[in-house]
Amino acid sequence: MAIAVEQFFLDPNYRGTLQRQLQEIVTGGVLAGRFRLGERMPSSRGLARHLGISRITVTLAYTDLVANDYLSARGRSGYFVSESAPRPPSFPTPVRTESNVDWSRAIGQRFPPSTVLQRPEDWRRYRYPFIYGQTDARLFDHQNWRKCALQALGVRDFAALTEDSYGRDDPQLIDQIIRHILPRRGIVADPSEVLVTMGAQNALWMLAQVLLTQRRTAVMEFPCYPALREILHQSRCNTLDVTVDALGLPPEDVPPEADVVFVTPSHQCPTSATMPVSRRRALLEQAEKHDFLIVEDDYEFELAFTSSPSPALKSLDRGGRVAYLGSFAKSLFPGLRLGYVVAPEPLIRELRTLRSLIVRHVPGHIQRSTAYFLAQGHYDAQVHKMARAYRERRAVTEVSIQAEGLTLAGASNFGGSSFWMRAPGGVQAAQLAERLRHRQVLIEPAGAFFGKGRDPETHYRLAYSSIPAVDIPEGIRRIAEEGQALARCRA
Amino acid sequence: MAIAVEQFFLDPNYRGTLQRQLQEIVTGGVLAGRFRLGERMPSSRGLARHLGISRITVTLAYTDLVANDYLSARGRSGYFVSESAPRPPSFPTPVRTESNVDWSRAIGQRFPPSTVLQRPEDWRRYRYPFIYGQTDARLFDHQNWRKCALQALGVRDFAALTEDSYGRDDPQLIDQIIRHILPRRGIVADPSEVLVTMGAQNALWMLAQVLLTQRRTAVMEFPCYPALREILHQSRCNTLDVTVDALGLPPEDVPPEADVVFVTPSHQCPTSATMPVSRRRALLEQAEKHDFLIVEDDYEFELAFTSSPSPALKSLDRGGRVAYLGSFAKSLFPGLRLGYVVAPEPLIRELRTLRSLIVRHVPGHIQRSTAYFLAQGHYDAQVHKMARAYRERRAVTEVSIQAEGLTLAGASNFGGSSFWMRAPGGVQAAQLAERLRHRQVLIEPAGAFFGKGRDPETHYRLAYSSIPAVDIPEGIRRIAEEGQALARCRA
Repeated sequence: MAIAVEQFFLDPNYRGTLQRQLQEIVTGGVLAGRFRLGERMPSSRGLARHLGISRITVTLAYTDLVANDYLSARGRSGYFVSESAPRPPSFPTPVRTESNVDWSRAIGQRFPPSTVLQRPEDWRRYRYPFIYGQTDARLFDHQNWRKCALQALGVRDFAALTEDSYGRDDPQLIDQIIRHILPRRGIVADPSEVLVTMGAQNALWMLAQVLLTQRRTAVMEFPCYPALREILHQSRCNTLDVTVDALGLPPEDVPPEADVVFVTPSHQCPTSATMPVSRRRALLEQAEKHDFLIVEDDYEFELAFTSSPSPALKSLDRGGRVAYLGSFAKSLFPGLRLGYVVAPEPLIRELRTLRSLIVRHVPGHIQRSTAYFLAQGHYDAQVHKMARAYRERRAVTEVSIQAEGLTLAGASNFGGSSFWMRAPGGVQAAQLAERLRHRQVLIEPAGAFFGKGRDPETHYRLAYSSIPAVDIPEGIRRIAEEGQALARCRA
Repeated sequence: MAIAVEQFFLDPNYRGTLQRQLQEIVTGGVLAGRFRLGERMPSSRGLARHLGISRITVTLAYTDLVANDYLSARGRSGYFVSESAPRPPSFPTPVRTESNVDWSRAIGQRFPPSTVLQRPEDWRRYRYPFIYGQTDARLFDHQNWRKCALQALGVRDFAALTEDSYGRDDPQLIDQIIRHILPRRGIVADPSEVLVTMGAQNALWMLAQVLLTQRRTAVMEFPCYPALREILHQSRCNTLDVTVDALGLPPEDVPPEADVVFVTPSHQCPTSATMPVSRRRALLEQAEKHDFLIVEDDYEFELAFTSSPSPALKSLDRGGRVAYLGSFAKSLFPGLRLGYVVAPEPLIRELRTLRSLIVRHVPGHIQRSTAYFLAQGHYDAQVHKMARAYRERRAVTEVSIQAEGLTLAGASNFGGSSFWMRAPGGVQAAQLAERLRHRQVLIEPAGAFFGKGRDPETHYRLAYSSIPAVDIPEGIRRIAEEGQALARCRA
């Protein structure tokens, strides 16, 4: 029996080549049982005419389908669905089930839902997206990333990267982190002191599991990274907030009962304050004196472009009390989910055991692609390029902020990718953001950094990592305009 | 100043092209501060002569370094280290730290170390590796996987895949799982009922966190997958073992106090028993009667080649009591760390919240590459090819087992990738494995499936997923020989 050309339709919305679409129609037809084993395919000439495409496209599609054993070629008789093609499943049409379980009772443990910052899913459609932490495709060295990923997909690497490697990390990535990244933070580490994680969030979560119990006390900065607050809350330890000032966390305010202190010294999240070296030393002394540990989240360290970066707190740590967290979310992209922890070996060992239990390891291909990107110098070129672009954007934003009279809520001599702002005259940041959305401007109200019931409701984050410099002045102008309009309504 | 050609050495062990090696020497030199900004590179002719390579290789390397801003070209004067090249870090040499923390006290929670099955890291060097669950590179469709991964690395997909997508999964992968995979297990699901996980281990772990508490009771099969026992132990719930027989878990033995029952109906792990449909129905009836939930781990379902596969337990589940687990570890490769859970929406919602907390989401590129591999029919072709090869290997193994008089400990009409075996005459499987190692044969003693203190010490797993059919008879012969030798010593 021959398959009729009428079974072939092109989808105008298909994203891909004609050849690929044709192949998918055939494989889909075979797998759905519509095209049966041994049936003859339409001639390439006939199908090409029917679809109004070139005959060579049909021939190429058929050839590929033969290579993949969906079709077989029988000389002049044409192409047939291969006898050894995958067979369609043969179950009766199943019935949808409705759960009659009382899930409110069946779920034994509930986890705090993430307080995601207010950001529409279609943020890329906005003209003035002052949103934080996403990749600017214009700045990313996509071409070299692709090369490195392709290299890591090569036959040579295949065996190593496809194995279940249990607790082990990719030695090439560990080597690059140790030789290439940590030295610029002043950190020396041995491979046994480094663990690859699924991003910084995963690292924070694992550290909380291993270091905290219901009888222990964690100290966090106020305000702080919302995901950290959720992680600590879920771990059920005692938590204490220490309010940061213009120089970050004041070490003398850390209570002696602290067991673990979570800090962001390079660039406080969200105020952008940089902790001076004297405070870092004081914090380490406190840690020795009161026997607490420190978790240093060094997010965005690559983007210290406004001044020479301070060495990491970890590099000053003589007592081995600091667990250092790095991430590739800002220098590469957040969807990679790749970070690392540097800490004394006994702690890394426990974290590794926990990681094995929950995810085993980070996918091999991701580790190796990143290792190549580092080894071949693309990472440095990339960070350099980003820093240059961000420096320009930051300068433009600063000028516009001054010109339009917006209010900075925190100063920073670090760089990074955002400003910490306050809305004018008691205006609610959420309300301001809502109005700006209708004018193509996105800003991030900062309630989540303060936590429930403690939000002054006036702060927002103004990030320039996803907006070109040329659009910044107009965006800032609109923020000023709407802010003033709202302030007038209140007055 | 000019950089001397003497600074260039080729590494004979370098894995990569000459051009890439040259580029790495330059980027490394710049980043280490050995090559300073503005310094002149050796001429391409001079460097080519010094290294004994072609001049075009040097020129290509230089051109690429210009594109990446490490070098700049100044017409006839040659190449110079670019003024805008990444700068080397300028910290004083840091000192290694020794931790003075009492880690035995500082670590608040210890997690059970994984009982990894005995398998040397260099298992690929052995001639007769009867080891389980790793990919046979000879069977994997590496070329099409690479194509799909490359497609997912394209500019079109870049924006979607590099974003931090918080709780969301790749809609294309979810669509493929729902339309392409689940129907062949008889399962109908809505996107809100599917969650992508970091492999089956991650799914089991998350289910244990959400469904179990210290007051709840989990039932597991005896023997069972060691990682499940560890996960349940860590969750601190009560656990009960139910001994499996030749038809898998006997439903009537599940105690009424069970809250969650973990089963492997298609293909019991490790005995390979397939649960008949009548037992599946009985188990579901029990679940309704005693109000317990079922976690169905449908590992290796793609490899049911010896008979028509039974529909999943989940497909018979009218009460919505089953959480179904699938994984791409066996059909693609374990290093991918990709799996999924299908369950009623309220449970998926909780699992998603937990996943957001611990890892956010599975890396976008991995999800999209797999979606393409499925959409383009390669997955089916791949499973088909594996099943064909495994069927042959299984037949060869079966004949050899009979011919050499080895003892099967469990029969299976499913297929899969291993046999469940017993050593002869009370011989310890670990001892047998140890002796076989010296003869290039790897088998897996099965103690971990039974758990501490309950191991009969005589069982082992004999997998044929990583050994070509041609090597099987000799491997089996050696197992028989060493087994008989050990049995004689005991007698």
